[in-house]
Amino acid sequence: MALSYLDELISALRCLPGVGPKSAQRMAYHLLQRDRKGALHLATSLERAAENVQHCSRCNNFSELPVCGLCASAARDESLLCVVEMPADQLMIEQTQCFRGMYYVLMGRLSPLDGIGAKELQLDNLVRRVQQHPCEVILATNFTVEGDATAHYLATLLQSLGVKVSRIARGLPVGGELEQVDSGTLAQAVLERREL
Amino acid sequence: MALSYLDELISALRCLPGVGPKSAQRMAYHLLQRDRKGALHLATSLERAAENVQHCSRCNNFSELPVCGLCASAARDESLLCVVEMPADQLMIEQTQCFRGMYYVLMGRLSPLDGIGAKELQLDNLVRRVQQHPCEVILATNFTVEGDATAHYLATLLQSLGVKVSRIARGLPVGGELEQVDSGTLAQAVLERREL
Ligand SMILES: [Zn+2]
Ligand SMILES: [Zn+2]
Repeated sequence: MALSYLDELISALRCLPGVGPKSAQRMAYHLLQRDRKGALHLATSLERAAENVQHCSRCNNFSELPVCGLCASAARDESLLCVVEMPADQLMIEQTQCFRGMYYVLMGRLSPLDGIGAKELQLDNLVRRVQQHPCEVILATNFTVEGDATAHYLATLLQSLGVKVSRIARGLPVGGELEQVDSGTLAQAVLERREL
Repeated sequence: MALSYLDELISALRCLPGVGPKSAQRMAYHLLQRDRKGALHLATSLERAAENVQHCSRCNNFSELPVCGLCASAARDESLLCVVEMPADQLMIEQTQCFRGMYYVLMGRLSPLDGIGAKELQLDNLVRRVQQHPCEVILATNFTVEGDATAHYLATLLQSLGVKVSRIARGLPVGGELEQVDSGTLAQAVLERREL
């Protein structure tokens, strides 16, 4: 039997991370009963984003243009490259206004248990970038087990290519994530980065 | 400044109940990075459902037809009308296979603190239905404070119209919700309904 449009919606909502059968059902009921306008707006936004958002060819962040605004800006210092795990981490560092260099967004972290290794993270893109545009690299991955492992791996890899590598200072609590820290602490951590 | 498509998607995801800024961001990243097909499928499902799912003119449940399949079926007993809060509750009762009557789905419950009164629940539709098609009414609202209040209100209202009203037996734990009970308990509760 064909699924009803309601059943299809409930099932489609399961593609959202952290949404199980019960929450999918609650979401579908809510949208159909109280917020059809929101549902249609979400549909349009999903389509537009899925069709137009790509990755910046330089920093790997999400971008609607082949090269994002930040990478295209003439005002940034190309001799410094800050490596972060996720777009939100880059936003956090930008908010501190203490860093005027470039970024590279890993879109993840090394996580052998989840099958995410150097290949899945496409670290060759980062290596190519550093070889084409020599610069000092600041590692700003999270101070979690996986973030530490990622930083360690990248430091070894980049140092073997003769790149100067530092890591933001552990001003963050151990196990802490960049997104959850106040701007001041994070700014301090960037300033006090230590060479690796 | 115009929102980017990514920012727009993050903001649109907030129309989902229980989704705050952080989860909206996580969902958007996940869809764009790992599941664009899922995002597009969700967009289509949202549109289809928002445009095609209406309410059955008889039972008030979600339906793509003016009258839903259950209400249109000749095999059901029109002398019994079971009133439930939500579509999922009706599904649960159907699964017990102990009830062959009709349903009325309130699409909610009386909740004065949330500003949901008799008017917001459109109880006049239920009253009209009972007046046009006289029947015995079985109240199967949840055994929560709000479900109890709804049952009490409906019992008084319907009895004043001369309708025979019963409520499913409290075979459910106090404070329990229909959705979380096993079929056997729920079937028993329907069989042991008591007149109000
Ligand atoms: Zn870029
Ligand atoms: Zn119906």
